[in-house]
Amino acid sequence: MAKEKVVLAYSGGLDTTAIIPWLKENYDYEVICCCVDCGQEEELDGLEERAKLSGASKLYIEDITDEFCDDYIVPCVQADAIYENKYLLGTSMARPGIAKALVKVARLEGATAICHGATGKGNDQIRFELGIKALAPDIKIIAAWRDDKWNMDSREAEIEYCKAHGIDLPFSADTSYSRDRNLWHISHEGLELEDPAVEPNFDHLLVLGVSPEKAPQEGEYVTMTFEKGVPTSVNGKEMKVSDIIRTLNKLGGKHGIGIVDIVENRVVGMKSRGVYETPGGTILMEAHEQLEELVLDRDTLRTKKDMGNLMAQIVYEGKWFTPLREAVQAFVESTQQYVTGEVKFKLYKGNIIKAGTTSPYSLYSESLASFTTGDLYDHHDAEGFITLFGLPLKVRAMKMAEIEKNNK
Amino acid sequence: MAKEKVVLAYSGGLDTTAIIPWLKENYDYEVICCCVDCGQEEELDGLEERAKLSGASKLYIEDITDEFCDDYIVPCVQADAIYENKYLLGTSMARPGIAKALVKVARLEGATAICHGATGKGNDQIRFELGIKALAPDIKIIAAWRDDKWNMDSREAEIEYCKAHGIDLPFSADTSYSRDRNLWHISHEGLELEDPAVEPNFDHLLVLGVSPEKAPQEGEYVTMTFEKGVPTSVNGKEMKVSDIIRTLNKLGGKHGIGIVDIVENRVVGMKSRGVYETPGGTILMEAHEQLEELVLDRDTLRTKKDMGNLMAQIVYEGKWFTPLREAVQAFVESTQQYVTGEVKFKLYKGNIIKAGTTSPYSLYSESLASFTTGDLYDHHDAEGFITLFGLPLKVRAMKMAEIEKNNK
Amino acid sequence: MAKEKVVLAYSGGLDTTAIIPWLKENYDYEVICCCVDCGQEEELDGLEERAKLSGASKLYIEDITDEFCDDYIVPCVQADAIYENKYLLGTSMARPGIAKALVKVARLEGATAICHGATGKGNDQIRFELGIKALAPDIKIIAAWRDDKWNMDSREAEIEYCKAHGIDLPFSADTSYSRDRNLWHISHEGLELEDPAVEPNFDHLLVLGVSPEKAPQEGEYVTMTFEKGVPTSVNGKEMKVSDIIRTLNKLGGKHGIGIVDIVENRVVGMKSRGVYETPGGTILMEAHEQLEELVLDRDTLRTKKDMGNLMAQIVYEGKWFTPLREAVQAFVESTQQYVTGEVKFKLYKGNIIKAGTTSPYSLYSESLASFTTGDLYDHHDAEGFITLFGLPLKVRAMKMAEIEKNNK
Amino acid sequence: MAKEKVVLAYSGGLDTTAIIPWLKENYDYEVICCCVDCGQEEELDGLEERAKLSGASKLYIEDITDEFCDDYIVPCVQADAIYENKYLLGTSMARPGIAKALVKVARLEGATAICHGATGKGNDQIRFELGIKALAPDIKIIAAWRDDKWNMDSREAEIEYCKAHGIDLPFSADTSYSRDRNLWHISHEGLELEDPAVEPNFDHLLVLGVSPEKAPQEGEYVTMTFEKGVPTSVNGKEMKVSDIIRTLNKLGGKHGIGIVDIVENRVVGMKSRGVYETPGGTILMEAHEQLEELVLDRDTLRTKKDMGNLMAQIVYEGKWFTPLREAVQAFVESTQQYVTGEVKFKLYKGNIIKAGTTSPYSLYSESLASFTTGDLYDHHDAEGFITLFGLPLKVRAMKMAEIEKNNK
Repeated sequence: MAKEKVVLAYSGGLDTTAIIPWLKENYDYEVICCCVDCGQEEELDGLEERAKLSGASKLYIEDITDEFCDDYIVPCVQADAIYENKYLLGTSMARPGIAKALVKVARLEGATAICHGATGKGNDQIRFELGIKALAPDIKIIAAWRDDKWNMDSREAEIEYCKAHGIDLPFSADTSYSRDRNLWHISHEGLELEDPAVEPNFDHLLVLGVSPEKAPQEGEYVTMTFEKGVPTSVNGKEMKVSDIIRTLNKLGGKHGIGIVDIVENRVVGMKSRGVYETPGGTILMEAHEQLEELVLDRDTLRTKKDMGNLMAQIVYEGKWFTPLREAVQAFVESTQQYVTGEVKFKLYKGNIIKAGTTSPYSLYSESLASFTTGDLYDHHDAEGFITLFGLPLKVRAMKMAEIEKNNK
Repeated sequence: MAKEKVVLAYSGGLDTTAIIPWLKENYDYEVICCCVDCGQEEELDGLEERAKLSGASKLYIEDITDEFCDDYIVPCVQADAIYENKYLLGTSMARPGIAKALVKVARLEGATAICHGATGKGNDQIRFELGIKALAPDIKIIAAWRDDKWNMDSREAEIEYCKAHGIDLPFSADTSYSRDRNLWHISHEGLELEDPAVEPNFDHLLVLGVSPEKAPQEGEYVTMTFEKGVPTSVNGKEMKVSDIIRTLNKLGGKHGIGIVDIVENRVVGMKSRGVYETPGGTILMEAHEQLEELVLDRDTLRTKKDMGNLMAQIVYEGKWFTPLREAVQAFVESTQQYVTGEVKFKLYKGNIIKAGTTSPYSLYSESLASFTTGDLYDHHDAEGFITLFGLPLKVRAMKMAEIEKNNK
Repeated sequence: MAKEKVVLAYSGGLDTTAIIPWLKENYDYEVICCCVDCGQEEELDGLEERAKLSGASKLYIEDITDEFCDDYIVPCVQADAIYENKYLLGTSMARPGIAKALVKVARLEGATAICHGATGKGNDQIRFELGIKALAPDIKIIAAWRDDKWNMDSREAEIEYCKAHGIDLPFSADTSYSRDRNLWHISHEGLELEDPAVEPNFDHLLVLGVSPEKAPQEGEYVTMTFEKGVPTSVNGKEMKVSDIIRTLNKLGGKHGIGIVDIVENRVVGMKSRGVYETPGGTILMEAHEQLEELVLDRDTLRTKKDMGNLMAQIVYEGKWFTPLREAVQAFVESTQQYVTGEVKFKLYKGNIIKAGTTSPYSLYSESLASFTTGDLYDHHDAEGFITLFGLPLKVRAMKMAEIEKNNK
Repeated sequence: MAKEKVVLAYSGGLDTTAIIPWLKENYDYEVICCCVDCGQEEELDGLEERAKLSGASKLYIEDITDEFCDDYIVPCVQADAIYENKYLLGTSMARPGIAKALVKVARLEGATAICHGATGKGNDQIRFELGIKALAPDIKIIAAWRDDKWNMDSREAEIEYCKAHGIDLPFSADTSYSRDRNLWHISHEGLELEDPAVEPNFDHLLVLGVSPEKAPQEGEYVTMTFEKGVPTSVNGKEMKVSDIIRTLNKLGGKHGIGIVDIVENRVVGMKSRGVYETPGGTILMEAHEQLEELVLDRDTLRTKKDMGNLMAQIVYEGKWFTPLREAVQAFVESTQQYVTGEVKFKLYKGNIIKAGTTSPYSLYSESLASFTTGDLYDHHDAEGFITLFGLPLKVRAMKMAEIEKNNK
């Protein structure tokens, strides 16, 4: 009888490589590796050979970069979804897309299980597993690092285990920080960052760009256009969203844009400290928000802010494939109908300086805003407005004065 | 019979000076001028002479700078109250304090009316008038610029009117931007800013500091301490809040911190564009928020964010003296009990770079956050957590799968 | 040259009849009357004759009852939109539909103005005028009762004015309460209701049904079905929504359902007291909510509740034709996809007693909810869940204990 | 050496009795029983004998009824905290008080563990454990039913186990429904309630009162007073809160008030169906809300509603001893300052009919609300108000018209 199959989320690194023989030994599965490419710019050459050499029967390389941009990043940009004021959700947004790709491969292969190597203390295990549960509730999930049968507790142990199973491969020595990278961002945890009292060492840390201090002395202008809330061009060139992000990543990285240092609250109940680089994403979200300033009315803007916070919460918690995320996205999409226009920024040493925004749907009216009186608005109207706007407050003050008087 | 008295909010500028003879001529009031000092650093010497020369019977100079800091700024900092993502409420927070001072003088003088010279298109008329209504609902409010009897529609007309009433004073020629300044910030409106497509001319515009491009090549560290959410020292020196803001204003201004350029939605229903400089305030609020990251748990942080947005809304709309503001502030104060600690920043060309935060009440736990397993947290716990956290999602997926199967 | 035309919202009552000659005399308009039928069950026979006799050149009778149900009521039912916990928005929901009908007639006739007879203290003036502004910003709005040229301050004055202009018609003597009726509800204000200390006189007051005390001794079952949140049948008979409401109105009215007595906060800043009868609507909304209990997950339900409150706010304030209402409705519609099923109630003397709900999409699972352990859920999972769910709380308690200990 | 002690939450029923020998056998603890009385009106005579006979070394009876009312119920009434629109939190509010009492006894006895017998599928385990973790993070928690060493899966097994350990006691045969009772309410789960399609059998089910159909034909008036949001008297007699609830329970139960039938979402991720009787509580909360209608302004009421929903969420989830609950309560308390007055209801067959509310702080003004014009409010003011209130909408409509025109 054929063995049952498991699909393993595979990166080629030590951790996920060691899982291959472990799965075979402990679960007697046929192991199908699946490397999901979200634009992390890792070397994929030789990955298949590596996976097979480690005992996998197959390697799928699923490039979902464009899907990641169109189906996950764009809705979050439209929602202005930012977690705890600072985190642009780079890792969080990628996880459901990866889960979806893993499920796709599992169905294709008729696999009965999916395995991942996310740590038992982080958010990613939740995001992967909720994604899989929602898309394929019948599939068994194996979280190797949480598994009772897992007993490797160091890189050395993993390397030894690999060797004992005939896998003798060179593994990257870069164990400095714990990192996650994709097209949108890179995150850094560990080392000196584990103490919030310590200033990050940007020179060692940064990967996608430089610190403001190392950025050029000359600023640089960049222009972006949006149609219905979707970015459509940079500096006059129409591009697909992934290319827009690539272009902005280069520009932003060069000018020290989008570095955040945050102590965040994980879903699993603890605080953790990380540094995130999101050079292009930061520019893109700021530009989008800037355009909304012109186009959305006050009431819509205010509620949309709450919905954006909620979207961030949902995505951070791995609840992408839920009715609530769909409903929030429906709200957001409805508001994007007129978020069309052009935004110009000057990038300079970590600063995004506004250099002009225009939209055919701008609700800004110079004649209304300026100090002279026009047709639409008569100063006398303010009189009546204030009377009614302040009525509850005045009635209350009169009531209190009356009571006070009676009490004397 | 003695004339009725009116208290006029007086700055010594052309607009409020012209109101003195206008009030006397049109309403036959005795005019009591009142200049409320919120740290705007204007010349107050000679102001009394000027007011009297213009026909006022008295001038009160009310210095409320410390009250402004302690009773208005601190609660807003504690609430992290920011309007429409960017505006740190500099003008909005000052208005209720000014209204209170005007009412105080009116009661002292037995005045029956208060007059202000705020424009009929702005937010300030609302803030002044709601403040007065709440504190003294019996007092008549005269908004000179909205008054039917007001017919001066230019600086020239005002100067002419003054001269015709025997007031021949030199008036500042600076009419470039419409500005409002106090200890916390300065706002700029008008001129090129009226077109959101135009980049602001920072070299002409800025008053409290320089642009990032003009800031020094060397960054500078600054350390602040807070006790229960109240700032208590800068760089190791204990100071009262107003001096902390003064100190941070200098530092922030020097390093190009706290310049925002925003298209905002006024209460009166229109969009307007302004540039705000809040050098010290930006540093202070960022430091406060940074400390809260360490000290507040996730649930509290999330709700506090909503309450901060609401506080900003309330303050922006001039509803300071309301039960809702009091209740929101009670919420916020309850959360500040443990917001005690030290924050270190590096200021560099518009950037606030985190350089270490500590608090005795920090909820960050290195052992919990790091990748090894401790006593408090067993990787197996995550298993159960995810099962229950994802249960609704999985039940739903199973239900849908079942329905789909039945439909086939 | 032809006179300009005005479209008058016309009911045939004294108030709107008196406006006809008033508009001609004071504005020299050709008056086009328009009576919008939202199911108010008023006599429409003879209305045309009456309007013309009063000086109108035409009468349009626009029956929008089904549009009212499908485009306004259904979205509010789906949103579970209830204002200030109690008011089912009967009048509020009808106003934008009426405004739309008036604008339609105005465009058809090439009219340049629309006139209404709503009072200057109520919400309806706002709802009418915001509706018209949003749909036809170029059309002039005349609010007769707020107009400087209006000087009739009593029924007697209006009757006299009519007679003086040759209009001698019998007018209903029922001036007891101020009422507004349509298919969804009837509102009552005035008389004894003006004092919240006074119990309403239901025997005089009620129009659509009886009080619980007068209701039959025998309860009665009713069954309703919904598809995607839209009501589709009552007691097994498929009907259009308007007929469902008619049927439920009879049933609910008979059994004393849906009478609320509320002190509400008007948009214009004052409190007012009213009694509303919404017999069918109350049953329908309760049934809809009941079905959602089964079908929506906890997160969605919670956010939907907030959105429902917001929808109520928007509708109450007359902001129907806004991007925010559209976006909220998009959210709500997204959640209604699976709100399909059957609800059974027993109606008895003011009580709606649940008698069984079913849905193919029910997320309720007997095996999960009951006390035995099943496949999906292992009691051990709760262990891990509680550990993580309670982690922030425990970390904090330990921290505080440590500090306390150190302080000793 | 002395044995370690465990405090067992003890009711005297079969479940908690069986835990006594089980704790001794499996953990070798000295077992201290603690029965916390929240007004459940159970027989406490003989309980000590029973506990000791079963192997406990001591029984504490902690009567926290008044503390339950003052510290838990009153804040929830003030917050109008209702979970998922219907559940008045009877069980949820009691759990933290019980946890506190258990911790108190544990400290007194120097116990190192606390044991409870709550099921592994319910909310109560969470509420007990979060309460204990927050108050005594060092104490070990034993959830007997979730324990690996627990292997009794039926009443029969428990009885047998007791007998085998020499405990031969008569146990109540009432196993019909799973119930929880205290002064505020009784909950019912199980039997026919497990199918939401089935109508509850009220005749068998109800304990605290009768169904509306069995209630008297004559209604009955009841009057309550509140001071600063705290109930102070019923029908003119001043009483402590617990006596007010007792009195209202009798009245409400008699008239069929406060029976709800709900499918609710548990914290542990599943839906469950229950019937709750809260006769007095329903009257009390409705009266409190009624008073707030008169006293709170619109803005405060709206935000308070959100805070009440949040309070309900927090309490339901067992997060009583958290900074967030404290902060929400601080908000609520701030709003209660003027919630003083008298509310009169008529109770009739399940209906609470309003019969008059008064408050010295009422913001309702007859002259403002009525249709005549007074000093405070001029109909012309509405004109200006509507112009500004509708300005964003009108500007947008004009913009869109302009674009449409240009596109032609």
